[in-house]
Amino acid sequence: MHLDQATPEQLSQWEADLSAQYQTLQNQSLNLDLTRGKPSADQLSLSDALDGILKGDYRAADGTDVRNYGGLDGIAEAKQLGADILGVQLDEILVGGNSSLTLMFQTVLVAHQFGLQGPESAWKDLGPVKFLCPVPGYDRHFSICEQLGIEMVTVPMLASGPDMDQVEAMIKADAQIVGMWCVPKYSNPTGVTYSDDTVDRIAQLAKITNPNFRVFWDNAYAVHDLSTTPTRLKPIMDSCRQFGSEDSVIQFASTSKITHAGAGIAFMASSTANLKGFKAVLGTSTIGPDKVNQLRHLRLLPNMAALTEHMTKHAEIINPRFSSVLTNLDRAFGDSDLGAWEKPEGGYFISFDTRPGCAKAVVKLAAEAGVKLTPAGATFPYGNDPEDRNIRIAPTVPSVEEVDQAMQVFEVCVKLASVRAQLNA
Amino acid sequence: MHLDQATPEQLSQWEADLSAQYQTLQNQSLNLDLTRGKPSADQLSLSDALDGILKGDYRAADGTDVRNYGGLDGIAEAKQLGADILGVQLDEILVGGNSSLTLMFQTVLVAHQFGLQGPESAWKDLGPVKFLCPVPGYDRHFSICEQLGIEMVTVPMLASGPDMDQVEAMIKADAQIVGMWCVPKYSNPTGVTYSDDTVDRIAQLAKITNPNFRVFWDNAYAVHDLSTTPTRLKPIMDSCRQFGSEDSVIQFASTSKITHAGAGIAFMASSTANLKGFKAVLGTSTIGPDKVNQLRHLRLLPNMAALTEHMTKHAEIINPRFSSVLTNLDRAFGDSDLGAWEKPEGGYFISFDTRPGCAKAVVKLAAEAGVKLTPAGATFPYGNDPEDRNIRIAPTVPSVEEVDQAMQVFEVCVKLASVRAQLNA
Repeated sequence: MHLDQATPEQLSQWEADLSAQYQTLQNQSLNLDLTRGKPSADQLSLSDALDGILKGDYRAADGTDVRNYGGLDGIAEAKQLGADILGVQLDEILVGGNSSLTLMFQTVLVAHQFGLQGPESAWKDLGPVKFLCPVPGYDRHFSICEQLGIEMVTVPMLASGPDMDQVEAMIKADAQIVGMWCVPKYSNPTGVTYSDDTVDRIAQLAKITNPNFRVFWDNAYAVHDLSTTPTRLKPIMDSCRQFGSEDSVIQFASTSKITHAGAGIAFMASSTANLKGFKAVLGTSTIGPDKVNQLRHLRLLPNMAALTEHMTKHAEIINPRFSSVLTNLDRAFGDSDLGAWEKPEGGYFISFDTRPGCAKAVVKLAAEAGVKLTPAGATFPYGNDPEDRNIRIAPTVPSVEEVDQAMQVFEVCVKLASVRAQLNA
Repeated sequence: MHLDQATPEQLSQWEADLSAQYQTLQNQSLNLDLTRGKPSADQLSLSDALDGILKGDYRAADGTDVRNYGGLDGIAEAKQLGADILGVQLDEILVGGNSSLTLMFQTVLVAHQFGLQGPESAWKDLGPVKFLCPVPGYDRHFSICEQLGIEMVTVPMLASGPDMDQVEAMIKADAQIVGMWCVPKYSNPTGVTYSDDTVDRIAQLAKITNPNFRVFWDNAYAVHDLSTTPTRLKPIMDSCRQFGSEDSVIQFASTSKITHAGAGIAFMASSTANLKGFKAVLGTSTIGPDKVNQLRHLRLLPNMAALTEHMTKHAEIINPRFSSVLTNLDRAFGDSDLGAWEKPEGGYFISFDTRPGCAKAVVKLAAEAGVKLTPAGATFPYGNDPEDRNIRIAPTVPSVEEVDQAMQVFEVCVKLASVRAQLNA
């Protein structure tokens, strides 16, 4: 189906055919959900050994009684795992509670209100500040900025990561830009992994802007490969060391999509100077993270080899779902001008760009045919996708059959919305 | 020993005798620690069944899979337990992660920066604001204020709680006072429980000041009784309902000193209006608390009866330590003008007031004789005890023999410092 070359008669005929197909789908009273970027029950069950794994031995490797108070930055073996995941040294890591989002919120808060390197480094004294947001991106990143009154400016995502020519130009031109959100591997939602060149250029941004600029490197899918020959992301701290910009990047990760989504452990990695400033504030709001749960995780996943083996089991569960989405998209839109998408080799999402002005209509049609999709616009700051194109597809929770069924509905909705838009153009 | 009636010759003789005794103690090379308000290993072991208690059943009572994301305010059965502990309704409670201190920090932050009831209720727009701090009090409360730039003004603690005449007068006179810290039961560190009259008067403070004034009611020792006929604290929400001031109090509690100190669950209770405002901000920093750990706790302590039974086991461990402190204080200072203290029926601390100007000297002498005490001044905002009198004694971690030994050192140090101060007066 190529709408740009279609005659009005063809369009009208397609509209009639698709409306009939849509009507049939509606009559099936489906109830399917592709909105939730979370693990399925089968995935969660891979880690059920966590409860009871301590067998009465509550001592960390260094003898710490993990049951008691204390240890603001986590137990040593959890730090080692975090350092291995994020590619940093042991003194560059902090292990928190069950949420990397919380660590991100706290870090933006500290940088803004109190300063990561003393009060004179606080962004609040710079007047109104801004964050660069590659789009489409992760709505919860945008909510943090909105909550803290930080303006968001967007930059497009390419297959290699954010458009770095634009990023560099914007940062050079505007010293009020103090931060940038990145999901560098299997990006939420486009699924792309940043190229080595992109990583190197991001590590050099500190050179062209103010010293308190920080990159928020949310490596949420660091080990979430679906392929046995996974995409390699260049460890950004290696680049930072090369360019002397260790203070400019703060990394995050968690086990939320490795063990139990709501009951994992979270990691933050940065220069010792940034961590020192962060901990000075963190220490006024907690005596320490849940070290018992950290120890449980390290008993289940004592090292990277165990972690990698564990992740292959997730891949076995997720792969058929991703395949269903990608096969359906290829079949339906491979030979068309109706949309574009990447083929992620990991992560939780596939992102589909409709023709301009169609995303909201597709989501609405799908909802009315019993298929829930993430609201159009959610992947943009302020919920505003200026071209109304991006739709995030999250296939991990439903069964393979359900994903397949949902994608067939998706196909008809995209085609119908696109044809109708073209008819009205 | 009564210094006020002593002759210079008596004082000199005492100084010589006590110096000799102190020297003997110093020669013993002791290494004792009365600083830490945390459970002993024996107490922690009471809850070791937590790990493994789920036996593969990760479903909350309402069917929620606690392993996955979601549920910003906790699982229903945990809410019920929190509501029972704090004396509120189910819709007035939120269950968090492992730290009530974190909930307190977040609540002060939200009230200050964002407003608990919309942006127009934010304290930051009132100019420099203040908190009332009954003293002596809990240093981590004071650190929150200091971190957030909130000035602290002090009011004395009496045996019935804060001096309410002063509290009311100060609040009436100064609309910049937006908050007040309270540890209403077995107060940290004096050990007193607020009288019903004090509770009622605190619940009526909202009437005499601005609508955004909030009492931070840290009921950390709500169920931490050492007696079988425990002191009863009037539930403040009952008073608030009576006086129509439900929005004016925010309560906190946790299982930190019930189960595993660093791996418990925390509770916050307030009006539905306050909780709504709080959750609006909380939701930008987390997807939800660790519900698996909440479920573990509810399997161990399904109701108040189980909780009370559990707490009697703590009391059996703590009681001999408290007895040692109180017996030693009675024996050493019962017939003297050297100090004053309360006899707490629960909690974690005994608080000793020396003669004015002696606390620092006592702590220093004790340290040099191998007995660590909490730094003098720590129980006051900015670390400043203006009369240099208060010393917090935390006897739960050492063995009974160690507490006994440490208290004998304490006795000599108090006497020696007091006599020396009197000689130099």
